[in-house]
Formats: sequence, structure tokens, C-alpha cells
Amino acid sequence: MTEMSSAVREMLAGPNYWQFGTINPDGRPQINPMWVDIDGDDIIMNTAIGRMKEKNLRRDPRVTLALTEPGNPYNYVEIRGDVAEFIEGDEAEASIDALAKKYIGEDKYPWRQDDERRVKLRIKPTYVYHLSR
Amino acid sequence: MTEMSSAVREMLAGPNYWQFGTINPDGRPQINPMWVDIDGDDIIMNTAIGRMKEKNLRRDPRVTLALTEPGNPYNYVEIRGDVAEFIEGDEAEASIDALAKKYIGEDKYPWRQDDERRVKLRIKPTYVYHLSR
Repeated sequence: MTEMSSAVREMLAGPNYWQFGTINPDGRPQINPMWVDIDGDDIIMNTAIGRMKEKNLRRDPRVTLALTEPGNPYNYVEIRGDVAEFIEGDEAEASIDALAKKYIGEDKYPWRQDDERRVKLRIKPTYVYHLSR
Repeated sequence: MTEMSSAVREMLAGPNYWQFGTINPDGRPQINPMWVDIDGDDIIMNTAIGRMKEKNLRRDPRVTLALTEPGNPYNYVEIRGDVAEFIEGDEAEASIDALAKKYIGEDKYPWRQDDERRVKLRIKPTYVYHLSR
């Protein structure tokens, strides 16, 4: 199913580190923990232009997100979706600052590198699986 | 690099729930939390015959494993590798019981279903990335 339950929405709204899978050029998944937010029915993420993840997504916008609830391994969610929009510029820079606020309580994302330009990802979920026992 | 550091070995040896990515027929990653063990330089996992994960691996043995240290999101490991052996029969059944012991303290895996047959996966790592800050 593609509908997100209120439990899944809460997991996206909280400061949880989701494992984020993109597809490498050779077809193998690359998986890293990432900051995530929810906006309506979309998932919001943010990466930097030129990173492997961004290159992967420009080539193939299909993503998979996975989260196991901290302290409860038998409550987990897998979401598959597609990047519908790559947003650059001021909105992308504001978005990484908002994520830094959510996750680490900082007004400004503190790990920006020189010449780093951010990209905001707007992801449309196509499949949501929630196991809880 | 393909070498596993002692820190990575400890993360594999402990009762950590790794996110395990296989490749669905359409090329998109499937990611679920899984029990994991280490045997020499190999990673040991276990699934049931007929599951999506097993079908994916028979078709494409490439896997990706990801773990974020509980309580420390800036210590994480990504391991990519290939399933080198699918082992069925008594060794596979003993292996899921050993994993149940490691993870939930039970001598026998308690969630076996009727007619379930297990398969032990022996995985050779080809890429190990450990970020710690």
C-alpha cells in the first residue's frame, strides 16, 4: 500500500535516522543513514550536489527508506518511493538548516563545506510496509 | 576497502539489527532489519526458502548491509558483498537457532512456520565503509 499511517508519519516526523538506499551505477544498493522530514504526503530529504547519492538519484530516482524503532527491533518500516523534485538554491539551503534544527538543535547546518551546494529532495512514496509485533 | 576493522567485527559480533538490502526484480532495493553474525572473514545471515529476499539473492547475490550504532548516529558502517554460498538442511536450521540464541536468548528459533525451510547465507564482503565522528 502507499498510504502512510499515523504511526509511520510520527516516525518520519521524529528525529529518527533512516537508512536511505539509492542505486549505484552497477545496480547495487548504496545505503546510508540520513535526516528525513515529512511535508504533507511527501518525504523531504537533503543532500549535496555532486555526492554519489545525488548522482545516483539523478540517474535513477527510485529510493528505499528503512527504519527500525530504536529499542524495538520488531517495529520497523520500509518505504519505497521516487524523487519527484530536486530543488536547489535558497530553498535547499533553508531545508538543510531546518533538518539541522530538528536533528541536532542547531539553527544552521554546521558541517557545510566550502563551495557545498545543497539539494532538497521531495519524495513521493509508492509503497509503505510497517511491521509491528 | 574490503578489510573489516576490529570495530566493524565487534559491530557484527554484537546483537545488532542490520538493515539488509537486496535487489528486487525491478532493480529497486528491498531493505529490512536482519540478524547477522560473523565467521572468520565472512558474514553469516539466514532467511527462509521462498521469501522475496531469498528469491532476490538467487537471482542477484549482491547485498548491502548498513548499521548505525544505537545511540550514536555518527558511527555507522556500510558493507557491500556477495552471497558466496546458500546452505540448506541441518546446517541452516542450526544456524537460525544460533542466531535466535544470540539475539533473543532462545535455544530454538521460536517463529518457525509450518513447512518453513531455512537457508544460511555466507557472504563475502567486497567493500567496507566505516564513518565515525
